[in-house]
Amino acid sequence: MKPTCRKQQRTMCAQYCISFADVEKAHVNIQDFIHLTPVLTSFILNQVTGRNLFFKCELFQKTGSFKIRGAINAIKGLTPATSEDKPKAVVTHSSGNHGQALAYAAKLEGIPAYIVVPQTAPNCKKLAIQAYGASIVYSEQNDESRENLTRRIMEETEGIMVHPNQEPAVIAGQGTIAMEVLNQVPLVDALVVPVGGGGMVAGIAITVKALRPSVKVYAAEPLNADDCYQSKLKGELTPNPYPPETIADGVKSSIGLNTWPIIRDLVDDVFTVTEEEIKYATQLVWERMKLLIEPTAGVGVAAVLSQHFQTVSPEVKNICIVLSGGNVDLTSLTWVKEAERPTPYQSVSV
Amino acid sequence: MKPTCRKQQRTMCAQYCISFADVEKAHVNIQDFIHLTPVLTSFILNQVTGRNLFFKCELFQKTGSFKIRGAINAIKGLTPATSEDKPKAVVTHSSGNHGQALAYAAKLEGIPAYIVVPQTAPNCKKLAIQAYGASIVYSEQNDESRENLTRRIMEETEGIMVHPNQEPAVIAGQGTIAMEVLNQVPLVDALVVPVGGGGMVAGIAITVKALRPSVKVYAAEPLNADDCYQSKLKGELTPNPYPPETIADGVKSSIGLNTWPIIRDLVDDVFTVTEEEIKYATQLVWERMKLLIEPTAGVGVAAVLSQHFQTVSPEVKNICIVLSGGNVDLTSLTWVKEAERPTPYQSVSV
Repeated sequence: MKPTCRKQQRTMCAQYCISFADVEKAHVNIQDFIHLTPVLTSFILNQVTGRNLFFKCELFQKTGSFKIRGAINAIKGLTPATSEDKPKAVVTHSSGNHGQALAYAAKLEGIPAYIVVPQTAPNCKKLAIQAYGASIVYSEQNDESRENLTRRIMEETEGIMVHPNQEPAVIAGQGTIAMEVLNQVPLVDALVVPVGGGGMVAGIAITVKALRPSVKVYAAEPLNADDCYQSKLKGELTPNPYPPETIADGVKSSIGLNTWPIIRDLVDDVFTVTEEEIKYATQLVWERMKLLIEPTAGVGVAAVLSQHFQTVSPEVKNICIVLSGGNVDLTSLTWVKEAERPTPYQSVSV
Repeated sequence: MKPTCRKQQRTMCAQYCISFADVEKAHVNIQDFIHLTPVLTSFILNQVTGRNLFFKCELFQKTGSFKIRGAINAIKGLTPATSEDKPKAVVTHSSGNHGQALAYAAKLEGIPAYIVVPQTAPNCKKLAIQAYGASIVYSEQNDESRENLTRRIMEETEGIMVHPNQEPAVIAGQGTIAMEVLNQVPLVDALVVPVGGGGMVAGIAITVKALRPSVKVYAAEPLNADDCYQSKLKGELTPNPYPPETIADGVKSSIGLNTWPIIRDLVDDVFTVTEEEIKYATQLVWERMKLLIEPTAGVGVAAVLSQHFQTVSPEVKNICIVLSGGNVDLTSLTWVKEAERPTPYQSVSV
């Protein structure tokens, strides 16, 4: 795509669901309630990739993932300081990080939260949601049951739905990651961001292209859930045709109507990775960086380790990978195996 | 023991194998070759313990543990800058972190390293030692075979032995941890240090009692390898009577002739913990702090979580636990189970 076309297209689609001003507002809304997570580096991973890698440690974030940013921003948007007009409840469907994050954020404001979760969700995730004081409602494991139940809970509780990735306030909240990265890594050339529903990569793309348009934004995606890649390829929103099977359980969702236009125009490229590549990258970060990331966070690392990424210009030298979370079910690590070592491991240190 | 007695005893035993001046020299020797590791905190662990905990992250250290400090200091001591009189080789027996550290340190100076390892050592540890370029020599799994073989290698290679925990230069190197902690946590009231052979706790005690004598130094030890506790109780060096069985494989050694006098006089107390307590504490740090510590590092955390520790005065508020390393064999995590939650977990966040 030539620059002129892209410019034209951007102009055509200027009306995204959020603007950078929303991200700036989100930053003010949430900064007292979240951690400014550190950026770490790894000599071995620089050697393996031949680039300077920077790891934005959202696994150290409150509730163990970046999702708390969007959740708090959404809740703050629902509870104006000058009004008693709080919602009676908030509702979402997510057995994962967004469920925990919304539970925590709602508790901060004293709002009841109802999280619709499939009965089959891992026990540790249910426990974590309950630990943050939210009510769990069990659905069957299919979309119809989940949606019917969510609607019913909303009616019964007069609750407001906070969508995990299409809610604009959530997207703006996730964009604050990029504001921090641009400060923490001033010479950054590219950000690599796992994509599921696309809330994080959309918020980050809006921010990066507003503040420093020359910095690349790359999405990273499991090959088994490659709706973002397919959408970009075809130029139209192309959801996963069936529920994807991937160990990266945080990015099983498809991108949606709000995130797609942003991704279409502002995300520079999408890298897909196999399940084996995700497992390998995750385990490499555990073993060499001692960071307990979840496999979803390994997707970004796998992308930068992939053969396809070698086609990226060497001028894109300083790359920040967002380690999205660390909520890994330790009892399910049956896939861990004696790691094969990347070649430089044979002769170098951490 | 009354203060007067202790003072008297200290005077009597002033001739330890190192002084604080050795630690200061070690700091100069090694500072360009190691990481200044960060100190992290955890809201949940503060809540659980009712104290302010600070975690000195030696799991992020070069080679994945604090052992590199002592190893580099020892090697630097063997290779004076003004002389060509380098040793022909260095030798040690350790399948663990000291083996890896010495291999790495020797490589920095271009000295061949021979590491005597039992044939039964985990494959990942052998690979790591080889990865740093050292030669592995296999012994039978008993002290006699190990010692005979080590002696033979020393003769054949004209190599110098670098003992993992009784070598004075090693003890001085480990003491640099405390120099950093006293700077990073100016209000620290106590340090908690896992003890095996006692190199780390002895180096730290020498440093703390020289720079800020009111700060407590506590040793933490598996109940199954409680020679340090028994020695302090009896007032005489009392090694483990047989090879201890503990998941904390980094602290199976007994304290020795060089570390005992320092521990006797300068370590304020010893806390022992069960295998279950070690596993629980290790998993808690994984789950809540997302730090992949090895169980040996979990010993210090377990000590602070233990019932016995509740007898420590509430005035000992700011406590720094040394997370000694992160070299965990991920393929051996068969003991991981659905964690029981400490009470505050039910209602609070990371």
